[in-house]
Amino acid sequence: MLSVSEAQERILAELIPMGPELVPLAEAWGRVAGAGIAARLDNPPADISAMDGYAVQAAHCRAGTTLPVIGESPAGHPFPGVVTPDGCVRIYTGSVMPNGADSVLIQENATESDGRMTASADAQAGRHIRRRGQDFALGQIVVAPGRLLLAREVGLIAAANHAWVPVHRKPTVAILATGDEIALPGETIAPGGIANSNAPMLAALVRACGGTPVMLPIARDDEAEIARLAQGVESADLLLTVGGASVGRYDLVQRALERIGLSVDFWKIAMRPGKPLMHGRIGRVPVLGLPGNPVAAMICAIVFAMPAIRVLAGRSDPMVAYDLATLGGDLPANDHRADHLRARLDRAADGSLLATAFPRQDSAMLRTLADSQALILRAPHAPAARTGEPCRIIRLDTLSI
Amino acid sequence: MLSVSEAQERILAELIPMGPELVPLAEAWGRVAGAGIAARLDNPPADISAMDGYAVQAAHCRAGTTLPVIGESPAGHPFPGVVTPDGCVRIYTGSVMPNGADSVLIQENATESDGRMTASADAQAGRHIRRRGQDFALGQIVVAPGRLLLAREVGLIAAANHAWVPVHRKPTVAILATGDEIALPGETIAPGGIANSNAPMLAALVRACGGTPVMLPIARDDEAEIARLAQGVESADLLLTVGGASVGRYDLVQRALERIGLSVDFWKIAMRPGKPLMHGRIGRVPVLGLPGNPVAAMICAIVFAMPAIRVLAGRSDPMVAYDLATLGGDLPANDHRADHLRARLDRAADGSLLATAFPRQDSAMLRTLADSQALILRAPHAPAARTGEPCRIIRLDTLSI
Repeated sequence: MLSVSEAQERILAELIPMGPELVPLAEAWGRVAGAGIAARLDNPPADISAMDGYAVQAAHCRAGTTLPVIGESPAGHPFPGVVTPDGCVRIYTGSVMPNGADSVLIQENATESDGRMTASADAQAGRHIRRRGQDFALGQIVVAPGRLLLAREVGLIAAANHAWVPVHRKPTVAILATGDEIALPGETIAPGGIANSNAPMLAALVRACGGTPVMLPIARDDEAEIARLAQGVESADLLLTVGGASVGRYDLVQRALERIGLSVDFWKIAMRPGKPLMHGRIGRVPVLGLPGNPVAAMICAIVFAMPAIRVLAGRSDPMVAYDLATLGGDLPANDHRADHLRARLDRAADGSLLATAFPRQDSAMLRTLADSQALILRAPHAPAARTGEPCRIIRLDTLSI
Repeated sequence: MLSVSEAQERILAELIPMGPELVPLAEAWGRVAGAGIAARLDNPPADISAMDGYAVQAAHCRAGTTLPVIGESPAGHPFPGVVTPDGCVRIYTGSVMPNGADSVLIQENATESDGRMTASADAQAGRHIRRRGQDFALGQIVVAPGRLLLAREVGLIAAANHAWVPVHRKPTVAILATGDEIALPGETIAPGGIANSNAPMLAALVRACGGTPVMLPIARDDEAEIARLAQGVESADLLLTVGGASVGRYDLVQRALERIGLSVDFWKIAMRPGKPLMHGRIGRVPVLGLPGNPVAAMICAIVFAMPAIRVLAGRSDPMVAYDLATLGGDLPANDHRADHLRARLDRAADGSLLATAFPRQDSAMLRTLADSQALILRAPHAPAARTGEPCRIIRLDTLSI
């Protein structure tokens, strides 16, 4: 059996990020930069005032000095003249510094009456001025390729004066759930049958990773039907199959997909839940075969499909980040399989996170997964751990899954 | 000046969550439950096997016992007969337990040949059976109203057999940027002008909070134009104005909006960056007036607009969560204003988070904000803090902003 990290490496090794497309800035949120984005101007565009006050020549503006106010430089309307030693210009936060001025005397240190300003403090050369290009300069790359574009990046790209943003195309991820026992949610369920929770859940995970899900119809446990439904998968960028992990059934999915060209890389991983994970390829399309238990399917998807979809989506940081927490309960020693324990997160009095594993980790209990804020990561052969020890966790809510 | 928490309370106090609508399950990800969602079936739907093996009567299946295999219970096809003391039924993970059987002998403890199974260990009554309703029972509320629907909730709602999900409608948030100096991103920028970064950035934040942004055209610094562009705001659920925080200009936005019925609640808060924040109401529509500096605008939006939009979106947990980190650098004592320092996050050797404030906190430096993974929260009058001390942070990337 492969280790989790060996399996991740083998899955990610052959993936090719999607090519670029242009989207309007207003649609760029949540996408991934497809190229380095260079500033099309200096920001600030000129030396500007950081405060409301008066633009002056510092050497000629000491406490007690009175100067005529020769003009105004409101934002968007730079003062067209020049500040000389015997004058000053009214200025506001964000306004362009007039030529000749080298300081802003803040209004708290000035009184104005009858067109004349009297200083109550010395002006200091260079004070309260934001220098041209201090935030970024023309031509500078403000967003690197592969970076996820959140609200702040959108603002930065706007400030760099782009209306269009090169991003990676969204990968299309086909999801094929198999099994005679599963029905579409909302339908009448036959005795012994269950509603298909895996496909809608994985579709949401695909969206959370920046992909576009395609939910294929449910395949019965029939080789020909599975092969038929997986036909046309060449138009997808990744195929996720779910189910068929019981004895005999896994081979069924594999045999069915072999009819349409599947070559299998591996299918067993030293992890819990989720040992049976199949990795292969149909032509250019990578295939991940997830176990049918909803909890096992989801945890395998977090560990393997999330980074894979993020690589396809162009992310330069595809791995799922872990955090540290404090154990809220004792844990027994682990066996040879990496474990992922569903856990509740609470706040300790000092604000730190307490992670407490749910007592029942049955992989069919989807409700426990939904009610978990985190997975506690247990390495193979990890020794027993006591309440209060640190532990590594994956936070689920912050991944939007 | 109001404290941050007083201001938050006053803003949130009068907000009314949006009413309900139904969306298809496949579109429910990222929405907020508009009602408690009750299970429409038991899960599991019957007692089912947790393993591959043989359904037996434990009292009659000891190590060395040989039993005829009288049938099979594959998933989706429950065995129609009854298991008697002198027989067993082949069973798989997820299959319905046949009547009469009270245990699963796992296949690792069995050998089968010529239609007969020989046990190599004793079966134990009740073992390897998942009980009907163990995950959730018919009628049980599996998702509470006000809960954000992530991938796991979508899976849970699917498992509860719903094709349609009641959610809160998305609040429409109108964004009005004002200022003679700002231009649309991508346009030719006049001398002293800047591209409008605030509106696209705030629009992305609105999406991250579950709202629908409406970007109004940019208003010049003109009372009539501001009033004209804000007309029709009755169709929005929240109005964000941006800019006009310099001397004289703030009154301009306020005066303009008073023409269309604005009543002002407050407009100064003891925080940095962002002191000038206006809160009011035009008819039924709440209004937040944000400062024009992009960093101040964004931080005010995180602190005040995010929880407000989440309340409108129906969230029962609207406040922005903080985390703990360790200071990666010394901090001076704080003055009377709550501060929000842009900070880099790094991993210490033990995996914990180190938060290091950027040396320049100039509120015009948008790039520093975009490159920050967190804001360090500094309470009013907080004493100086040393490297290695704990600090509270807001993580920005995990908020998708």
